[in-house]
Amino acid sequence: MSVHKRISAVRRILDSNAWNAIVITSPENRHYLSGYTAEDHAADESAGVLVITSDAACLYVAPTNLPWAISEVPPAIVDVVPWSASWTASVAAQLERSDSRTVAVEDATTTAASWFALRDAVSPTVSILASGDAIDSLRAVKSSQEIAILAEAARCTDAAFLQAISRFESGMTERQAANLVHNALRHAGSDGEAFDTIVASGPNAAKPHHRPGSRALAEGEPIIIDMGARVDGYNGDLSRTVCLGKPDQRLVTIYEAVLAAQIAGLEAIRMGAHASAPDNASRDVFTDHDLEEYVIHSVGHGLGLRVHEAPAVSRRSTRPLETGNVITIEPGLYVPDWGGVRIEDVAVVDSDGHRNLTTAPKGVATISL
Amino acid sequence: MSVHKRISAVRRILDSNAWNAIVITSPENRHYLSGYTAEDHAADESAGVLVITSDAACLYVAPTNLPWAISEVPPAIVDVVPWSASWTASVAAQLERSDSRTVAVEDATTTAASWFALRDAVSPTVSILASGDAIDSLRAVKSSQEIAILAEAARCTDAAFLQAISRFESGMTERQAANLVHNALRHAGSDGEAFDTIVASGPNAAKPHHRPGSRALAEGEPIIIDMGARVDGYNGDLSRTVCLGKPDQRLVTIYEAVLAAQIAGLEAIRMGAHASAPDNASRDVFTDHDLEEYVIHSVGHGLGLRVHEAPAVSRRSTRPLETGNVITIEPGLYVPDWGGVRIEDVAVVDSDGHRNLTTAPKGVATISL
Repeated sequence: MSVHKRISAVRRILDSNAWNAIVITSPENRHYLSGYTAEDHAADESAGVLVITSDAACLYVAPTNLPWAISEVPPAIVDVVPWSASWTASVAAQLERSDSRTVAVEDATTTAASWFALRDAVSPTVSILASGDAIDSLRAVKSSQEIAILAEAARCTDAAFLQAISRFESGMTERQAANLVHNALRHAGSDGEAFDTIVASGPNAAKPHHRPGSRALAEGEPIIIDMGARVDGYNGDLSRTVCLGKPDQRLVTIYEAVLAAQIAGLEAIRMGAHASAPDNASRDVFTDHDLEEYVIHSVGHGLGLRVHEAPAVSRRSTRPLETGNVITIEPGLYVPDWGGVRIEDVAVVDSDGHRNLTTAPKGVATISL
Repeated sequence: MSVHKRISAVRRILDSNAWNAIVITSPENRHYLSGYTAEDHAADESAGVLVITSDAACLYVAPTNLPWAISEVPPAIVDVVPWSASWTASVAAQLERSDSRTVAVEDATTTAASWFALRDAVSPTVSILASGDAIDSLRAVKSSQEIAILAEAARCTDAAFLQAISRFESGMTERQAANLVHNALRHAGSDGEAFDTIVASGPNAAKPHHRPGSRALAEGEPIIIDMGARVDGYNGDLSRTVCLGKPDQRLVTIYEAVLAAQIAGLEAIRMGAHASAPDNASRDVFTDHDLEEYVIHSVGHGLGLRVHEAPAVSRRSTRPLETGNVITIEPGLYVPDWGGVRIEDVAVVDSDGHRNLTTAPKGVATISL
């Protein structure tokens, strides 16, 4: 879907909500709707803000980013304008010029400071409303072109995983193992990393977000790797649990439960099913194994330009899954002081159920390195 | 300075402003005041929120991050509490329990959605105020321990720079050159990268924030490298401009002007001087050379746990420089269609002027590879 068609979809959202304009501060929504790929250094260091009205689309950027933005944005569709003192002043001036009276602002990614600065910079007759997840919902359904890029990100992630683990050795630190992943991702063609690679060994594997440290990998214990390539801004996301040498019986038992839960989660994916179905299906398996006390996170999340995006895939999700949603299914069990197991694939919702973009092996026989 | 002393400093800020509590959402301020090193995935995916009152300090984290936070936070000083549905609900409950009536919230890093959720979750009698940069100002003056870590980050950055450029070759792409930097940073002991490494060659060097791409490095043209190590959360930041083979006269002329401006900027650093002094001194050099039309960014910024932090170092800065500020001095000239030159060092403000933490060579005789 071209930038032009995407902006037309935003204009239909404006119409249906009776908004005159929307102010887009999410870096991923900005990328999606303008082609401008810069990221934000921090919440309060925006690389650009996009304003869409019924007849204009204007990307405001810091003067230092002007050449970058101009090189990426289709000129007939989106105007690129350097802001002067701040984006809020420039955006307020456009809203006044275009006589926009009802303006939606992305409240999930606009800082309170910018919100109040914008509100103070426009006339009191302008209402500033929260846009909620209007644009995120648009991004949740991927085009075939986006799915092809996500498939390439998954391929690149899987190839890097196999290359990296082939060099894992007992005595190597988690950080050294993570460096093998970094290098393998770049070698496989990734533009960078979707997120900081996790290598969590032994008891550290009980922490879902462990940062790789100086602990040495040892035989027989679980090693969770969570990693993702980035291709054209789209993210891969893969978790596997491996073991140097032979896993002990406890690891095999827990691994088999997680694998069964992961397959149950994948099989629960169905167009029109509630997005809570995969989480419920995975939890049911853990309950059957009497292991639910070790569940500490939801089964998955949407994946695209952002690593965690719509649709949410948790017990609390009430929306139906749609064809073209791309989601992860990554159940895990985390046993304090022992370790953990997580297995994650990326799946596209389609009319028959799902298509799995991940090809890295996950059978229990494949976990021994 | 220990977490305990830092929290005492925050309590003095509470007292002087007559605030009962402060809600800290900045990831770097949270790290600084609790020891918890997790980063936020995005503005609306907080890894934790710290609340400090006169008699309590409480870090709220997502349940998945609980083991991580507990492993890093000093238990007698900061309580770690998993939030339930959202951080705003948990923080509101604490504010009510502690009868905090005047509450400052970090408006520069709190999203508008969270701000309004927090405001709606507390009693109408609670006033929610913007904290502005109260905590950032505290962080702007570094302790000797922090300066030692920043010196190590600079050393690591400089070593990686020298190793990487020794392998630059004509015909290599910018992305390949950037990969040499990535690898050299990790080899030199960096925990990661302070920011996405820039390698900008030929006309691409006219874009200050160029992302390395498929353009091949060629002889005789400027190549700007902007890179930084990360050590214990603290950032390095180094820009150098090099050339494969012999630079042409234009590159030499522009390089010499930027170097003169960079030295003038460094020499203008003085405790008690306005933070605008280095920017003005650099610009004066460019004006003398009749090159000011090619200046498109400020001369520098504060550096620490965040790459861009207080103090601001631009023409508009009005605060005085203080002993212990750590700032970059990085003037640049950007000539459309030709390229650019940027030279950047990291300096500590001290009672005699400054101490330069950067040791990478920058004389015009050193730019040929």
